[in-house]
Amino acid sequence: MDPARLRELLDKVREGKASVEDAVGQLKQLPFADLGYAMVDHHRALRQGAPEVILGEGKSPAQIAGIAKELARTGQNVLVTRLDPTSAAEVRALFPELEYKSEARVATFVQTPIPTLGRKPVALVSAGTSDMPVAEECGETLRMLGVRVERVYDVGVAGIHRLLHKREIFERTAVAVVVAGMEGALASVVGGLVTTPVIAVPTSVGYGAALGGLAALLGMLTSCASGVTVVNIDNGFGAAFAAARMLRV
Amino acid sequence: MDPARLRELLDKVREGKASVEDAVGQLKQLPFADLGYAMVDHHRALRQGAPEVILGEGKSPAQIAGIAKELARTGQNVLVTRLDPTSAAEVRALFPELEYKSEARVATFVQTPIPTLGRKPVALVSAGTSDMPVAEECGETLRMLGVRVERVYDVGVAGIHRLLHKREIFERTAVAVVVAGMEGALASVVGGLVTTPVIAVPTSVGYGAALGGLAALLGMLTSCASGVTVVNIDNGFGAAFAAARMLRV
Amino acid sequence: MDPARLRELLDKVREGKASVEDAVGQLKQLPFADLGYAMVDHHRALRQGAPEVILGEGKSPAQIAGIAKELARTGQNVLVTRLDPTSAAEVRALFPELEYKSEARVATFVQTPIPTLGRKPVALVSAGTSDMPVAEECGETLRMLGVRVERVYDVGVAGIHRLLHKREIFERTAVAVVVAGMEGALASVVGGLVTTPVIAVPTSVGYGAALGGLAALLGMLTSCASGVTVVNIDNGFGAAFAAARMLRV
Amino acid sequence: MDPARLRELLDKVREGKASVEDAVGQLKQLPFADLGYAMVDHHRALRQGAPEVILGEGKSPAQIAGIAKELARTGQNVLVTRLDPTSAAEVRALFPELEYKSEARVATFVQTPIPTLGRKPVALVSAGTSDMPVAEECGETLRMLGVRVERVYDVGVAGIHRLLHKREIFERTAVAVVVAGMEGALASVVGGLVTTPVIAVPTSVGYGAALGGLAALLGMLTSCASGVTVVNIDNGFGAAFAAARMLRV
Amino acid sequence: MDPARLRELLDKVREGKASVEDAVGQLKQLPFADLGYAMVDHHRALRQGAPEVILGEGKSPAQIAGIAKELARTGQNVLVTRLDPTSAAEVRALFPELEYKSEARVATFVQTPIPTLGRKPVALVSAGTSDMPVAEECGETLRMLGVRVERVYDVGVAGIHRLLHKREIFERTAVAVVVAGMEGALASVVGGLVTTPVIAVPTSVGYGAALGGLAALLGMLTSCASGVTVVNIDNGFGAAFAAARMLRV
Amino acid sequence: MDPARLRELLDKVREGKASVEDAVGQLKQLPFADLGYAMVDHHRALRQGAPEVILGEGKSPAQIAGIAKELARTGQNVLVTRLDPTSAAEVRALFPELEYKSEARVATFVQTPIPTLGRKPVALVSAGTSDMPVAEECGETLRMLGVRVERVYDVGVAGIHRLLHKREIFERTAVAVVVAGMEGALASVVGGLVTTPVIAVPTSVGYGAALGGLAALLGMLTSCASGVTVVNIDNGFGAAFAAARMLRV
Amino acid sequence: MDPARLRELLDKVREGKASVEDAVGQLKQLPFADLGYAMVDHHRALRQGAPEVILGEGKSPAQIAGIAKELARTGQNVLVTRLDPTSAAEVRALFPELEYKSEARVATFVQTPIPTLGRKPVALVSAGTSDMPVAEECGETLRMLGVRVERVYDVGVAGIHRLLHKREIFERTAVAVVVAGMEGALASVVGGLVTTPVIAVPTSVGYGAALGGLAALLGMLTSCASGVTVVNIDNGFGAAFAAARMLRV
Amino acid sequence: MDPARLRELLDKVREGKASVEDAVGQLKQLPFADLGYAMVDHHRALRQGAPEVILGEGKSPAQIAGIAKELARTGQNVLVTRLDPTSAAEVRALFPELEYKSEARVATFVQTPIPTLGRKPVALVSAGTSDMPVAEECGETLRMLGVRVERVYDVGVAGIHRLLHKREIFERTAVAVVVAGMEGALASVVGGLVTTPVIAVPTSVGYGAALGGLAALLGMLTSCASGVTVVNIDNGFGAAFAAARMLRV
Repeated sequence: MDPARLRELLDKVREGKASVEDAVGQLKQLPFADLGYAMVDHHRALRQGAPEVILGEGKSPAQIAGIAKELARTGQNVLVTRLDPTSAAEVRALFPELEYKSEARVATFVQTPIPTLGRKPVALVSAGTSDMPVAEECGETLRMLGVRVERVYDVGVAGIHRLLHKREIFERTAVAVVVAGMEGALASVVGGLVTTPVIAVPTSVGYGAALGGLAALLGMLTSCASGVTVVNIDNGFGAAFAAARMLRV
Repeated sequence: MDPARLRELLDKVREGKASVEDAVGQLKQLPFADLGYAMVDHHRALRQGAPEVILGEGKSPAQIAGIAKELARTGQNVLVTRLDPTSAAEVRALFPELEYKSEARVATFVQTPIPTLGRKPVALVSAGTSDMPVAEECGETLRMLGVRVERVYDVGVAGIHRLLHKREIFERTAVAVVVAGMEGALASVVGGLVTTPVIAVPTSVGYGAALGGLAALLGMLTSCASGVTVVNIDNGFGAAFAAARMLRV
Repeated sequence: MDPARLRELLDKVREGKASVEDAVGQLKQLPFADLGYAMVDHHRALRQGAPEVILGEGKSPAQIAGIAKELARTGQNVLVTRLDPTSAAEVRALFPELEYKSEARVATFVQTPIPTLGRKPVALVSAGTSDMPVAEECGETLRMLGVRVERVYDVGVAGIHRLLHKREIFERTAVAVVVAGMEGALASVVGGLVTTPVIAVPTSVGYGAALGGLAALLGMLTSCASGVTVVNIDNGFGAAFAAARMLRV
Repeated sequence: MDPARLRELLDKVREGKASVEDAVGQLKQLPFADLGYAMVDHHRALRQGAPEVILGEGKSPAQIAGIAKELARTGQNVLVTRLDPTSAAEVRALFPELEYKSEARVATFVQTPIPTLGRKPVALVSAGTSDMPVAEECGETLRMLGVRVERVYDVGVAGIHRLLHKREIFERTAVAVVVAGMEGALASVVGGLVTTPVIAVPTSVGYGAALGGLAALLGMLTSCASGVTVVNIDNGFGAAFAAARMLRV
Repeated sequence: MDPARLRELLDKVREGKASVEDAVGQLKQLPFADLGYAMVDHHRALRQGAPEVILGEGKSPAQIAGIAKELARTGQNVLVTRLDPTSAAEVRALFPELEYKSEARVATFVQTPIPTLGRKPVALVSAGTSDMPVAEECGETLRMLGVRVERVYDVGVAGIHRLLHKREIFERTAVAVVVAGMEGALASVVGGLVTTPVIAVPTSVGYGAALGGLAALLGMLTSCASGVTVVNIDNGFGAAFAAARMLRV
Repeated sequence: MDPARLRELLDKVREGKASVEDAVGQLKQLPFADLGYAMVDHHRALRQGAPEVILGEGKSPAQIAGIAKELARTGQNVLVTRLDPTSAAEVRALFPELEYKSEARVATFVQTPIPTLGRKPVALVSAGTSDMPVAEECGETLRMLGVRVERVYDVGVAGIHRLLHKREIFERTAVAVVVAGMEGALASVVGGLVTTPVIAVPTSVGYGAALGGLAALLGMLTSCASGVTVVNIDNGFGAAFAAARMLRV
Repeated sequence: MDPARLRELLDKVREGKASVEDAVGQLKQLPFADLGYAMVDHHRALRQGAPEVILGEGKSPAQIAGIAKELARTGQNVLVTRLDPTSAAEVRALFPELEYKSEARVATFVQTPIPTLGRKPVALVSAGTSDMPVAEECGETLRMLGVRVERVYDVGVAGIHRLLHKREIFERTAVAVVVAGMEGALASVVGGLVTTPVIAVPTSVGYGAALGGLAALLGMLTSCASGVTVVNIDNGFGAAFAAARMLRV
Repeated sequence: MDPARLRELLDKVREGKASVEDAVGQLKQLPFADLGYAMVDHHRALRQGAPEVILGEGKSPAQIAGIAKELARTGQNVLVTRLDPTSAAEVRALFPELEYKSEARVATFVQTPIPTLGRKPVALVSAGTSDMPVAEECGETLRMLGVRVERVYDVGVAGIHRLLHKREIFERTAVAVVVAGMEGALASVVGGLVTTPVIAVPTSVGYGAALGGLAALLGMLTSCASGVTVVNIDNGFGAAFAAARMLRV
């Protein structure tokens, strides 16, 4: 039941065309979301200047282009994640306005200006060059959410001086996203250096006992730095969303 | 090398009593943390009104009481976590000022007023009554960090109406901490309802395929709600620290 | 907002004391479950003649007795599961009317007659004598749900003739619950013999590679018999509830 | 020993051509299944209007077509599951009557009308669009078993209002099949909303900590909703068979 | 249907009191195992001179003594495995004839002479002194099965000369049982030295990455020596039974 | 040091050309295997009429053909296992005498008659048609070892009558090899039916919770039938070698 | 801040152009690694005659060639690891001076003579021919680090005489690197034979319960030989670096 | 066969009392280790001034005291590891000369002076105070092996300045042993700071996702610092032995 129909019913009550009991009966049946308001509020918050996000993995190029076009038609910005180069080429043949960034494996279409979110940027820290696709997925998602980003790449703990050298960055950023594979130790070191929120993103970089990212995941969850939080392996997108949630506090 | 000694060296350079080369040589050896300033700043931020935290698990009552007394002697507030009732009784025999809360398994000693942190409270949501020890560890830690808490307990997803009934709480809180064992689904549902940060705390409640909390942990990490972050199993303390980091954004 | 308040609002609309717009505004805020009707229906169905269930594990005897007494006070029957003998003695000291069955590790209190559920009984099949506590937890829960039970114990597949000898039981029962530890193969054999629903309950019986019931769990999930469903390790209670759901079809 | 030979032996006994002792001796040797009756009964129940099912995975197109043709020759309906598009094309080149549904990855051939099974339909609920192949495997299997289906797709718990909006469907269906990947929380929410049997199907949708469907599997097994039963990861076929077993109760 | 009832039916057929069709009908219902012959044969083979075996773990002393006495009453020998010293004392208070061997954690009662099984003894090899309980459980079970044993203990691969020094034992034994915890490498070395069957028994000896015996289990399963077979962790009893099966070849 | 050189040294001692001390010194250095006799004996036993075995997996066609030709040159029979069709074609282009059996994924070359091993055949039992490659790898290896085989395929426990129907096969075979994927329950049922050795071979057939054969492996290790032994997943070759070891007892 | 800038600041202090307080302020900000000396020392030690190492896996041929050329331009030697033949061909098209060794999957470019490291060679021991790629990755890395190598390949424990035959090699080497897959038992046997450091390298050779190298890894970690250390699965490179660290002791 | 008997045989050959052929025959049977020299050499190296080590875990106090006394009787020093306080008291009642160190859980008896091993000490680094028992087990074992130790405790990476402050210790030590639980990141940081060998010891400190030390173990195995080696969880003893092996290079 949408607000129009609700008004219609209340008008009938007011005009005596419907009894109070009838209205109670109908309103009791009122499905929660039919009003749609709660989620609309929620969705509006999410969508103001923010992209609709399409998980590219597991969808055909035709499906991706179809959804993207539909979203674009309504004036929204579009973000497609986990899109490999081959699929990207096919999608762009169908929807050429999409811009593809191979390093981040994302495609974006911006037609509506994105308002800035947060007073300070997010620090985006990664351990090694192989973690870059995940870091860039995070970076591009942040950009589409209106969040400014300061990147500090390739500062893994095996050369701890590299991180310490760049540590002043944490004084001018509001949240730190730490992207690391293998043993994922960078999250603990950053967590010990800063008082801002730290979002740890384990990556599937590594082999053998890295267990596809589980070693980094377990390491980040058991970090000896207090108050580090963790997202799923390779989930740069989720880390960006989490950071956006925090910037709204 | 503390600032005093640094000044002394520079004075010698200024006065010509030490050559520039000598000073370069000495300063090159300068251990990073000897200045101590960075960590001091960091630590001060953490410690302003905040408790020193002692992990009770794996320490003897005598050790716990000793550390607690030492901290108390310097005027600080004290928080001991993961303290079982038997140990607590022994610790309190040695340090009677400690107040023990058995449900949270924490002991606290507050001698310095705790300044309020954050403009809004934190929503502390738990799925079942068995999750209460972890939730309360979080709640007590938040209290010691100066964070106000609104509790919503026993709103597991098997009776989803219980959560929906209380959902307005999320409009007046800045961060949601969701504590749940078994399948941990509550984090996803809350994550879909709110735009604030959501910190998911899996608990070891459950048996068999719950695998000591791993089922809830994996579930929360793969949440279909975007931007939910996760801490270690049963880590109510860590969730509280993470929330405090976010309230400072 | 309960029906009374809803009526009050609609009366005001009818009488012109509240504008339609105001009413739309208020009704939009209407929390879903405040009406409470849907869940009440659902709960009534669950509770008609059925026991309130208290998971004994992880609760103190005082807590268990307190909850049980409160439930009993409202005229309901009571079932406490996973209650070890020591706790049971303490609980019964506080609430002597509870009857304890040590083999099933359950305590029950029946003051309201339990209507029979289902046209046929449930076949309760177990592989070995060590599986009996789980089987009996299921059996007692079924009894409290009004379901008749036919037991076939100790018919593990290492002596397949024992099961075949008893197979006519499946012709007069509506659902088969199969309780087995170790490799849990009994579920596949029963699944191949019958056309009724088969609920497989892995138990933690076994050692080493049994991995606390995981071997049986995995075996039952990958059963070569089509359409066997599985519940958590040692979850006799859950199997009984699942059977009751099926008897209502 | 088939019935004909059995009759022949008994005729000899009647006619005095065989002694009772001889017949006892022969009958003692009687292999159980030689009579075949038990399984025939069982199989007949399974096969009335139901398809013979061929697991396509791991078979060559020639093998699949061969088995399908042989089954079709005897007048039966045929269902091939887990058949990828490439193999499907090759199979259909050999047996063009097979109809392929790429979304469900199944091929079917119906020559005998399928009698309706069950008084009410089955509710087929899925969390996301990526779960559709598994859901449709279930849906197609149900169709071939004569079961009517009501689909409710894309109602994952991150937007709980979507499910609540559709909840009246559960009042007109006899069994709920819930298909979900990632954390699989939908099964718990549905399990809390309905009194019908709930069959949870974890899917391998997700990455990282989803562990190929294990996260959803563990979550469903430890559901806080009582009496939810679970089948193997991606086993839409098994869920359909389980539902059919329940509809016969 | 036992032979007596079968004879009765055939008599009726012979005498014309039952028609052939009636008899076919009744015989079709004939439950397989009612004749009992197959399993009797099988069981007789197992039981000739062999002990009835009671798994002591998970049974109360009263239950163990009760079963043991019942078996003893029928003239059989008795073997109780996995019996800890405390329980053993209680059991022996009830059944003093039982002899307890604490190192093997078994209790035995021999009243019937045990015929020798196999032309050669079994070589019982263990890696370290901590593996002795499992090795002795195997040794005692072999003794009760009538199998002679040659023990070679404490010949782990870290001092490979110890095993090589004793290698001539394998020339006069028919089967080698190798008991080893930690990495379980002894099975591979023995498997490479001998042409007899090798039964590898992983033990739960070790800590950390030994994972309760899983490391040894995996190591033995992936042995680079061809044709080594494996039993469950700590399953000395099973290894003895497997050896007995082999000695009958 | 070979026997010739040993004799030469001893001759020198006898002739006084070498002192006893010198000889002691040289003999102390004597590498164990230089005598070679022990292993020669062992190897001779293995090689009499038996094939040299080449694990095809992980070797290039050129390597496989090279090793095979070298072995063939010395008059031996050759067995290549785990050889996929593409590689097989390339290998046969280089060594056309090799005969390839695609179902077993093995290639063989027999130039020396293979003496029969064992007084009775081995029963080769498999659960489903998908287990056939592993079963046939075992069957072909047995053939190359001179062991006769009786095959009983597709007798999985979901239709237990199929196995019971064929059970007399176990009376005329010396060892049972049971090949099964999914839950692997067939090994327990066979183990309960026979007194011969049972070698269980888990296969990687199945998906989801089958975990690539781990479910079957765990199930077989925890079999409720006493004395079943297990080899690695998909290791048909190892099971054949183990059977051959047993036939020599 | 590099030494030049440090001197400049101190000069200003000496000359009175900067106050002591200003200098203290600036020096307090002094990022640790700006001096760079510590790491330079460390790096110099690593780089003297040693190669810069590029992990080929996960990089494009263009990236690899680019980095390699850049390193070569500064006069350094270059080592690329985990480089498959296809990529190697592409890389060499861009940088033809690189020499590719397919067995070791490494490419090297040596323009600066490599000084010898260590007084004795390293013993490089492998269990089977399939372990050779990992062993050779180790061997090539050792060569590039200036370490001499003595290879002992194909001495797995299933034929223990092969290792014993070669054991004198350990008397003339300083460190033993043991490369083995499957059960990895070779590390324990070598560990028991020698007093030098033993570095165990598990490989992913094997299938089924080998679990991609985890069985070997767990076996090596739980080795019954005291003081064996372990590196990651397939990490021949890491073992070489560890050996080089030890040779510098 | 010991050297004396060998001489006797050779004397007979020299004197013509034994033929060359007879001697060849006897020497061919010569069990490898009968000469005992190789292992004696090896053992001597291990035992010179070094303790015999008794693993206390899993042995009775009487057994421990018995072995310790026997070793002491032959003049050797004794080290008992993993000895809890209760057992230690009982052992010392039987062998009062043993000195017990509760923090290290070891008991020692030194009667023979221990020669110093290594030109430099070993750096013993631990992350937190809870890691101390494992670190001290290592430290005490090093002491008994004659190795000097420099301890750096409580320098976990969450406060990285603590480690950097102490880093000069690594310039005067030959090997670094790094003991850390939880995420074990300290090993990577130390590995990046030093060029000496780094032996990482994961501990079981932590809870939940620490998985009893597996998180730290996996993290250390996948360390981004090149050439870090790892021992089993909590294996301080093994790390000490490994360090001693390295000091002999």
